Amino acid sequence: MLVNSSICGRRSSFLCSLVLRRPFSMSSAPSSHGLEVDLSHPTYMIWGANTGVGKTLVSAGLAASVLCESQSSAPPAPSQFLYVKPVQTGFPGDSDSRFVHRKVSELFLNWRSESPIGLYASNHVLKVSGAASVEMPGVERVEGERNAGLRDVCFYEERILSGVDCEGKDSELLCKTMHAWKEAISPHLAVVRENAGVEDAVLLQSLKECLASTFRGGGSGRKDNFWCVIETAGGVASPGPSGVLQCDLYRPFRLPGILVGDGRLGGISCTISSYETLKFRGYDISAIILEDHGLSNETALLSYLRNKVPVLVMPPFPRDPSDDLIRWFSECRNVFIYLQKLMHTAYLKRIGRLHDIGAKAGEVLWWPFTQHKLVPTETVTVIDSRLGENFSVHKVIDNCDFIIPQFDACASWWTQGPDATLQIELARDMGYATSRFGHVMFPENAYEPALHCAELMLGGVGKGWASRAYFSDNGSTAIEIAIKMAFRKFSLDHGIHMETAYDSMGKKMDFRVLALSGSYHGDTLGAMEAQAPSIYTSFLQQPWYSGRGLFLDPPTAYLSNGRWSISLPTALQFRMEKTDDMSFDSFDDLFSWSRESSVLAEGYSAYITEQLSQLSGGSESTHIVIHGAGGMHLIDPAFQRVLVRKCRARKIPVIFDEVFTGFWRLGRESAAELLGCMPDIACYAKLLTGGVVPLAATLATEAIFEAFSGDSKAEALLHGHSYSAHPMGCSAATKAIQWFKDPSTNPNLEGGGESLKELWDGELVRQVSSHFAVRRVVALGTLCAIELRAEGSDASYASLYASSLVRSLRGDGVYMRPLGNVIYLMCGPCTHPHVCRTQLHKVYQAIDRFAQSQPSKLSSTAL
Amino acid sequence: MLVNSSICGRRSSFLCSLVLRRPFSMSSAPSSHGLEVDLSHPTYMIWGANTGVGKTLVSAGLAASVLCESQSSAPPAPSQFLYVKPVQTGFPGDSDSRFVHRKVSELFLNWRSESPIGLYASNHVLKVSGAASVEMPGVERVEGERNAGLRDVCFYEERILSGVDCEGKDSELLCKTMHAWKEAISPHLAVVRENAGVEDAVLLQSLKECLASTFRGGGSGRKDNFWCVIETAGGVASPGPSGVLQCDLYRPFRLPGILVGDGRLGGISCTISSYETLKFRGYDISAIILEDHGLSNETALLSYLRNKVPVLVMPPFPRDPSDDLIRWFSECRNVFIYLQKLMHTAYLKRIGRLHDIGAKAGEVLWWPFTQHKLVPTETVTVIDSRLGENFSVHKVIDNCDFIIPQFDACASWWTQGPDATLQIELARDMGYATSRFGHVMFPENAYEPALHCAELMLGGVGKGWASRAYFSDNGSTAIEIAIKMAFRKFSLDHGIHMETAYDSMGKKMDFRVLALSGSYHGDTLGAMEAQAPSIYTSFLQQPWYSGRGLFLDPPTAYLSNGRWSISLPTALQFRMEKTDDMSFDSFDDLFSWSRESSVLAEGYSAYITEQLSQLSGGSESTHIVIHGAGGMHLIDPAFQRVLVRKCRARKIPVIFDEVFTGFWRLGRESAAELLGCMPDIACYAKLLTGGVVPLAATLATEAIFEAFSGDSKAEALLHGHSYSAHPMGCSAATKAIQWFKDPSTNPNLEGGGESLKELWDGELVRQVSSHFAVRRVVALGTLCAIELRAEGSDASYASLYASSLVRSLRGDGVYMRPLGNVIYLMCGPCTHPHVCRTQLHKVYQAIDRFAQSQPSKLSSTAL
Repeated sequence: MLVNSSICGRRSSFLCSLVLRRPFSMSSAPSSHGLEVDLSHPTYMIWGANTGVGKTLVSAGLAASVLCESQSSAPPAPSQFLYVKPVQTGFPGDSDSRFVHRKVSELFLNWRSESPIGLYASNHVLKVSGAASVEMPGVERVEGERNAGLRDVCFYEERILSGVDCEGKDSELLCKTMHAWKEAISPHLAVVRENAGVEDAVLLQSLKECLASTFRGGGSGRKDNFWCVIETAGGVASPGPSGVLQCDLYRPFRLPGILVGDGRLGGISCTISSYETLKFRGYDISAIILEDHGLSNETALLSYLRNKVPVLVMPPFPRDPSDDLIRWFSECRNVFIYLQKLMHTAYLKRIGRLHDIGAKAGEVLWWPFTQHKLVPTETVTVIDSRLGENFSVHKVIDNCDFIIPQFDACASWWTQGPDATLQIELARDMGYATSRFGHVMFPENAYEPALHCAELMLGGVGKGWASRAYFSDNGSTAIEIAIKMAFRKFSLDHGIHMETAYDSMGKKMDFRVLALSGSYHGDTLGAMEAQAPSIYTSFLQQPWYSGRGLFLDPPTAYLSNGRWSISLPTALQFRMEKTDDMSFDSFDDLFSWSRESSVLAEGYSAYITEQLSQLSGGSESTHIVIHGAGGMHLIDPAFQRVLVRKCRARKIPVIFDEVFTGFWRLGRESAAELLGCMPDIACYAKLLTGGVVPLAATLATEAIFEAFSGDSKAEALLHGHSYSAHPMGCSAATKAIQWFKDPSTNPNLEGGGESLKELWDGELVRQVSSHFAVRRVVALGTLCAIELRAEGSDASYASLYASSLVRSLRGDGVYMRPLGNVIYLMCGPCTHPHVCRTQLHKVYQAIDRFAQSQPSKLSSTAL
Repeated sequence: MLVNSSICGRRSSFLCSLVLRRPFSMSSAPSSHGLEVDLSHPTYMIWGANTGVGKTLVSAGLAASVLCESQSSAPPAPSQFLYVKPVQTGFPGDSDSRFVHRKVSELFLNWRSESPIGLYASNHVLKVSGAASVEMPGVERVEGERNAGLRDVCFYEERILSGVDCEGKDSELLCKTMHAWKEAISPHLAVVRENAGVEDAVLLQSLKECLASTFRGGGSGRKDNFWCVIETAGGVASPGPSGVLQCDLYRPFRLPGILVGDGRLGGISCTISSYETLKFRGYDISAIILEDHGLSNETALLSYLRNKVPVLVMPPFPRDPSDDLIRWFSECRNVFIYLQKLMHTAYLKRIGRLHDIGAKAGEVLWWPFTQHKLVPTETVTVIDSRLGENFSVHKVIDNCDFIIPQFDACASWWTQGPDATLQIELARDMGYATSRFGHVMFPENAYEPALHCAELMLGGVGKGWASRAYFSDNGSTAIEIAIKMAFRKFSLDHGIHMETAYDSMGKKMDFRVLALSGSYHGDTLGAMEAQAPSIYTSFLQQPWYSGRGLFLDPPTAYLSNGRWSISLPTALQFRMEKTDDMSFDSFDDLFSWSRESSVLAEGYSAYITEQLSQLSGGSESTHIVIHGAGGMHLIDPAFQRVLVRKCRARKIPVIFDEVFTGFWRLGRESAAELLGCMPDIACYAKLLTGGVVPLAATLATEAIFEAFSGDSKAEALLHGHSYSAHPMGCSAATKAIQWFKDPSTNPNLEGGGESLKELWDGELVRQVSSHFAVRRVVALGTLCAIELRAEGSDASYASLYASSLVRSLRGDGVYMRPLGNVIYLMCGPCTHPHVCRTQLHKVYQAIDRFAQSQPSKLSSTAL
């Protein structure tokens, strides 16, 4: 868009200047880190479709209903109701917590005059701006402090209504205003005008503590008669104090909500749009309630909702400001009783499902790579949601239900890139793409997301070599396509008659792949054939597998005791003496091009030449680089460069499997860039879409593409999947590719946007690499892999060696899955280094504890 | 939810009754059928974030700017501006078109007193309710008609302002109110109260005609100085006359929009939510403009929008009703000039991209199954969007740009299920799933969408046999998994030692698949191996392919001259005489179980037994049923039943490839149900998600699952993809599966919800099947495949025989891709039979024309 100029109309008419300014942050959604939610009692957000739609009346009505109705049972039992207003403006003139405190007390007196149980009601104001504090009766003026942030005022008022039976325990109504400002404007403006801000993380942390500490007795079990509501300020997308929209601000808790709709003319639209804004952020809305304005807005809402969400109607609010509302509340007492029941039912349903889901999953799902017999129900992780880098996991602790954030250290099988902000942006794009395109078939068609995505890839990971994008669904299919491309090119270059499968010398062709031992490229048969025999390719798994490759044992690089070193495989150890060019001060030294002329590189070269010569001339065809599963090894870059050079010289097409490494995983947009070598074909998936939906792409040079050009369709590449280049995947990729490489959205970029800054604190990584329980570390880009010292069967893929360590880390909020004796942390390209440091520190401490717990095993290897 | 009871509060306090009522339809979004859009001049929707935010002021300001500014060029040129108000309530007291007509005339006089060009301004009112017509001066009262629908009033007023240069042509302002009601309430209420409705389809058709007919001279070329705006009523999601939300109502046109935001307190939230409601329906918003209320709402909006959409601010509206606004308009003249420029730039950018996209796509994309050399740029189909069953395709006709709806008769490679309404519901679910989950890794984890999707599949397509769901990404991977499952089960059942690959007799195993010739199961190597040799599996495509199957030639069933018949393959023709049980009156007779004991079935049985015996005992393992690509053949159900029975008897696991047939494609939820046979394993994809995103599932019996149970991970099924059971796919599937089988959302269900009603008009199908140019027809469920009579190379897959027919059908708005001499129409499970009939009728007519055009070719075969 072209809005950099700043043309102004006369007087107050103006076009916004679009210069990015702080303190108004570009709506960075807060992370859920450290924000667990106690689910042992009903807790709801109260949202409004607009300002002035009656959120506080609903809160008060609900509170009165809970406090009075729970006593209608026999024997009457006390109940508790916590009302929280995290953000209040117009204070102290307006105070919703004061209103709830007073009105509910009055209603209690009216409705429960003969109650055996009394009521203890309090209203608490915690922090207010200086300007607001001046207006508060009884709050001391502090000179000089007036304009310096929020003040702790700890204002407190209470009412005690005795029950008839003096022995009975009191019910409790606790009302809290957490942060208040004087001006009756949007909080983000009040913050600036009154110079009293509060950071999102601090606000959320205080809110969490407020919820956790309020209910006395904490303890165990479900407490259905302890309720809590959190009333938001203004509309669903009104900014909070920092400027972040409230629907984004409170997302880490993902509490269920009640939406107070708008019954006025235009209210159908406001209510539906507000509902959609909440749904599009992953919230569940248990009911909509609105004031009756005689327009039957509820009918239109129910139609829109297809009756899936109940809509309740309150009688018109009295317009006379002197009305004490007691009569109005009585008129709609049944509405609030019904609302309470709906909320309670929804609450029980959610808890019930969370309790059942693990066992049910164990009965009907068939997980990949999983021996179900080894997964007891109680070890199944129940994931309620994710936000950015964190899962929200359901756990029962001391008989209480919690939703606990856990850092997804696996990046969900290495797919994840979004932080909370990108996730919400992607949600908007996914909704848009579904509505605009759904799916449209690809061949001979052009549509914006597919073209844009291809253009971005060719100008990014494919820059300088690729000219065509072939879309498919996952890494495995991308590899199958790459292999087909490479075979065709190889045949053309080597004079093989593809119709008859004989080469120019009349020799029958047996096509083989040149690949690296231990590499993994996917589980479809074609991709399996390009892998060396392993547990994954055994006869037990796929009897058709024969391993159609020449598999080289590559040297690997790793960090140990703070230095980068090279580890040679047996095949190379045997043929070369230990040279002095196998240890490096820095990562840059390891990747230096000067190593091309080292003794080591000469050794590599000789080894590769020898291996290639062992194959019958020309029957091998492709070479597939870098790998993940099986140990997170980093292949020595010098070896890879030599290999590419050798293949080029023999006209062997080079495929890079960048499914794992592509899109900043290793700190550069591609491994090709990191290595400084270009392939003929490369495969991408996983992070390509940022991590929300499957999509894969095989990029190729024009020469590869031309190998399929001909007069007949039979010469074309006849491979495809129904959802090739599906618009949602391409739209997600378009967003993610741009987001990761734009310094305005990815603050981790450095070096002119060419690389990510160090995400894993260098000093801490060196410490980890020097720990006696650690054998090697590879910290590179978003990955920090740690190989623990282990011997024999402990060092195998199937080893359970790291299980106790992983269990202990899950307790620390780190979700990890070990690969034998290798554990790893993975973040997204935009993850704040502070988050990485925190997680790595937890890992360091856990390793230390782990090492202490099994000194016998370690002592033998550490010495 | 549990809201069937109807508890009422006192007086006006009540809970909505949730009984579904007409005429308030359950928001069925209208289809884009027949609604082309002329893009040869800028055309915009004006949306409001609420009522009363100034949509009409913006329309008027923009009109004045366009009409005055276009003359500031030299030489001054006349321009045209069409303002349309499709829906007006409060009429005639309120008339936005009258306001624009009068105000813009006044502004023109004020701003252009010395203009060389004059202005012709008109205001036209087309249809009003009886109640509103009574209030109109000069409109005749018609007795008895008062409450009978909308009346044509053709009210007309005009103003002519002469230019200084009397020779100069006049500019033109055309204002139109299309439908008006008296009461100042939401249109859907006014319709009921004034008993004067208008159907969505009629409204859209009139709007289209209004846009198309207004600009005189129609003709060729781009007309940048001809503008059009369509002003909506109320907020973005306010209901239109039928009750369908306006954002859904106007979606078929998908015109770009201007959103008039809300500058008041609470307005940030309203504006953002409204923007999201529009984006989530696939609209593009070129700018947001709002009234200044001193709250700087624009700053928060720009932050939210990351400066991607410009936000403009108008000075406060005068509150004095007697103010003539002339001064106000002058104050914000620069704002409107700037808005006009923004809109013009966005318009040119869109047109430019639509013109370029085909050529660019041809340069960077590599389409599957496509010989690029045979696809000239001008034949590339540029798809601007899709809505339900229709693509919106960009076309240039007579030098003018159009967006034209085309029925997607391929159902985008057989994936599509949604009508417009389901597509919008899916968009909401996709946004929710992305925000709530993004992606979470699957193994050993439980999360709602994956579990719910598995439960629905096991209770639906897997009912009665399947107990486990294994997720993957597409049909091909689902087949690879199925084959691995079947091999393991076969080995266990036949005493094969999987570790060593020898059977109990010490014989080395060569696993083979029993499959049907001509079948297609996907393009990854494992799936290819299960297919008989063909163009897809040639050495040219994948040198590793060897065809590891026993491929049976199946008999097929088809409709010809109105009767179902069986066609025997050569292998069967050879061994059996023509029997009298090969022709059937009805589809039900064809599928009758009584055929099990027919002579024909005995012949099948003998053939299958013989074929099985030819294989070395026990080395074959799986059997894969039904197929699509290569000709859309329907295998004789009797043959399939015999085959399943024979395999069962030999403990050969049976796999059903339901990738194409699953989820109502053939009129029943699964082909297994249609056939009345249960498999051991079945594969699903395509329609599984309704058609928005890739997801596949392989269902299996508990016995299959148990074959992988053991004490070691090595015995587990070690196959997986990163996005296994991704939440978006599972959420889409959850919605689609339920939607298709719920009579309240799928009116095509009959027989107690077990089957779809006849979608392709039976009589018309019989007519087609009797046409001399048609060889066979298979009309079943959502599919209607037609094989044209053709001989020799014309009858092959690569044949271009049907090209001219397909080209002609594209001109008729039917997007089709032939499979050689087979053409087909495919709809979704919810598509209205009327839509199917219309498309089939077009096909019938096109076939007739086609046949006339090449009588020589046909005469030889028809005789």
